[in-house]
Amino acid sequence: MTKKLIAVLRGEPSWPPPVWLMRQAGRYLPEYRALRAKAGDFISLCTSPDLAAEATLQPVQRFGMDGAILFSDILILPWALGYGLRFAEGEGPILPRLTSQDIARLDPTRLERALQPVLEAIALIRLRLGDQAALIGFAGAPFTVACYMVEGGGSKDHVLTRAMAYRSPHDFDRLMTILTEATIASLSLQIEAGAEAVMLFDSWAGILSPSLFRRFVALPAARIKAALAARFPAIPLIGFPRLAGALLGVYAEISGVDAVGMDTATDPAFAASLVPAPTALQGNLDPVALLAGGAAMTAEVARILGALRGRAHVFNLGHGILPETPPAHVAELLQLIRRADGVA
Amino acid sequence: MTKKLIAVLRGEPSWPPPVWLMRQAGRYLPEYRALRAKAGDFISLCTSPDLAAEATLQPVQRFGMDGAILFSDILILPWALGYGLRFAEGEGPILPRLTSQDIARLDPTRLERALQPVLEAIALIRLRLGDQAALIGFAGAPFTVACYMVEGGGSKDHVLTRAMAYRSPHDFDRLMTILTEATIASLSLQIEAGAEAVMLFDSWAGILSPSLFRRFVALPAARIKAALAARFPAIPLIGFPRLAGALLGVYAEISGVDAVGMDTATDPAFAASLVPAPTALQGNLDPVALLAGGAAMTAEVARILGALRGRAHVFNLGHGILPETPPAHVAELLQLIRRADGVA
Repeated sequence: MTKKLIAVLRGEPSWPPPVWLMRQAGRYLPEYRALRAKAGDFISLCTSPDLAAEATLQPVQRFGMDGAILFSDILILPWALGYGLRFAEGEGPILPRLTSQDIARLDPTRLERALQPVLEAIALIRLRLGDQAALIGFAGAPFTVACYMVEGGGSKDHVLTRAMAYRSPHDFDRLMTILTEATIASLSLQIEAGAEAVMLFDSWAGILSPSLFRRFVALPAARIKAALAARFPAIPLIGFPRLAGALLGVYAEISGVDAVGMDTATDPAFAASLVPAPTALQGNLDPVALLAGGAAMTAEVARILGALRGRAHVFNLGHGILPETPPAHVAELLQLIRRADGVA
Repeated sequence: MTKKLIAVLRGEPSWPPPVWLMRQAGRYLPEYRALRAKAGDFISLCTSPDLAAEATLQPVQRFGMDGAILFSDILILPWALGYGLRFAEGEGPILPRLTSQDIARLDPTRLERALQPVLEAIALIRLRLGDQAALIGFAGAPFTVACYMVEGGGSKDHVLTRAMAYRSPHDFDRLMTILTEATIASLSLQIEAGAEAVMLFDSWAGILSPSLFRRFVALPAARIKAALAARFPAIPLIGFPRLAGALLGVYAEISGVDAVGMDTATDPAFAASLVPAPTALQGNLDPVALLAGGAAMTAEVARILGALRGRAHVFNLGHGILPETPPAHVAELLQLIRRADGVA
């Protein structure tokens, strides 16, 4: 039998909607913090099959979400291509600032071997998960991964990346092509290992002008979707072009993804008008409303459920769960959604 | 005779469009850096009428924009209400983190006196500017100013501010009311001193969920527009809800502003469909395209001009000019726009 999350991602509405939460495996959970302490550094946690599997399963065991998202990181992809990566405590990821020479050194032949522990984690999760929830694999979208590589880490405005796109379009296109092909390879391997749906996180899609958005966000997503559809027609792809705003419709049309993630700022009713059915929509409770809990959260949940009733909708947050979130609020949220007839 | 910029802001199309640039007075200009060194700290520069006037006029004298925007800062408003403010070199503004008690201590009776040097700067600018360009006054929108106060400075995700809005709606509403009234007072004083148009900068509008966006972005803008329209019906108000995305239409409709600013990520043609004429549109060249210059900039300029031809459009950037921008690129941009028949 098709799992509920997968059916909805393929375009069949379901009520109440299936639910999972971005960053549901993470620091707000005491059992995650214990696991993290045991693993040592973050990359070791991502590349220890047993520990990554345990982190993935923790929230599903505690709260019973419909989806389990692989515990990993979008920067595992450049790391697997041989690009330096480390995580400094409290500072986020640190990478070399990309040079033109670095692009030539990226090595796709390393990818499958480097991803082996991640693929083993996926196999373990599928075994342990059974029919309880669907397993979601993922990758950073090429533009967002390029941002981290060009800036050498996080950035407020990604000026270096956009300047490279305007000034050195040849280099930037070469980088985007390598990352797009590596993303197709990584997601294909994840599906073969057991992922039942895959998601593309394009966290920085919203900083681009409309012409660059088409070229570096929507078109790479289209290439990835086409390549996966040819090999794995039954596996849905969720695209999440964060802060795409009014370009959500353009993204859905060009990319052909099966489901579109909505960020916190997106009006679900408007998104539903921009993105025609049967494309599914995913989102978009404000993580701060989940942090706050209580009446404010209840009202926001009711608003989102009401706006999307009748559409193929996967309930989720509009951005990752905040580390300060009380786990009790997550339990409350799942209850709210599952007795949704009372609120919407 | 009505200045071209003002006529367009009131809804009359003009070709080629009038142009000014956000942060056109600033660090990319050597003459500004010399002035800044002379003034000492940043608040002294904003509150020395002669120096603030000179900073305002520098780019207009060098490049001949159609608009001169008052050299000031959105945080001069809370400062004028008695709220602590300092600028640390390279770190941006530092303020106390707002407490409930602080709200009661904000003192609107200080406002007019504290703003006196700013109003004197406006009078000086008008005298020196003559018919060359129109003078634009401005304020931070209440939500964005509240963000800086609650967070104690800049922030990546403004979790404290949004958590306050969800958890302590009474306190947050009180803060928003005080800031909205102070904004009306400040903009009214600026208009009386000589500002020919005014602009509301809501830099963080895009982080809110749609329901909070209506309440804390669109409705305060509507109150400000209504109050100004009653006293100064001929003075246009530009609203800039940055990253509002698909909510731009909602903002235009609820607020009733005369012109809507488009950020870099906004598709001008789509914005034109969301925001009906005669409301003017302002924007939105990517500041990174201006930094890069050359063919990439020319193509982006042509795209924007072409998309908005026939609409009341004020050419501008989608975000503030970057400090690394070569002044020669600004001169080139103004030439491109003014011989626009060649590019669009």
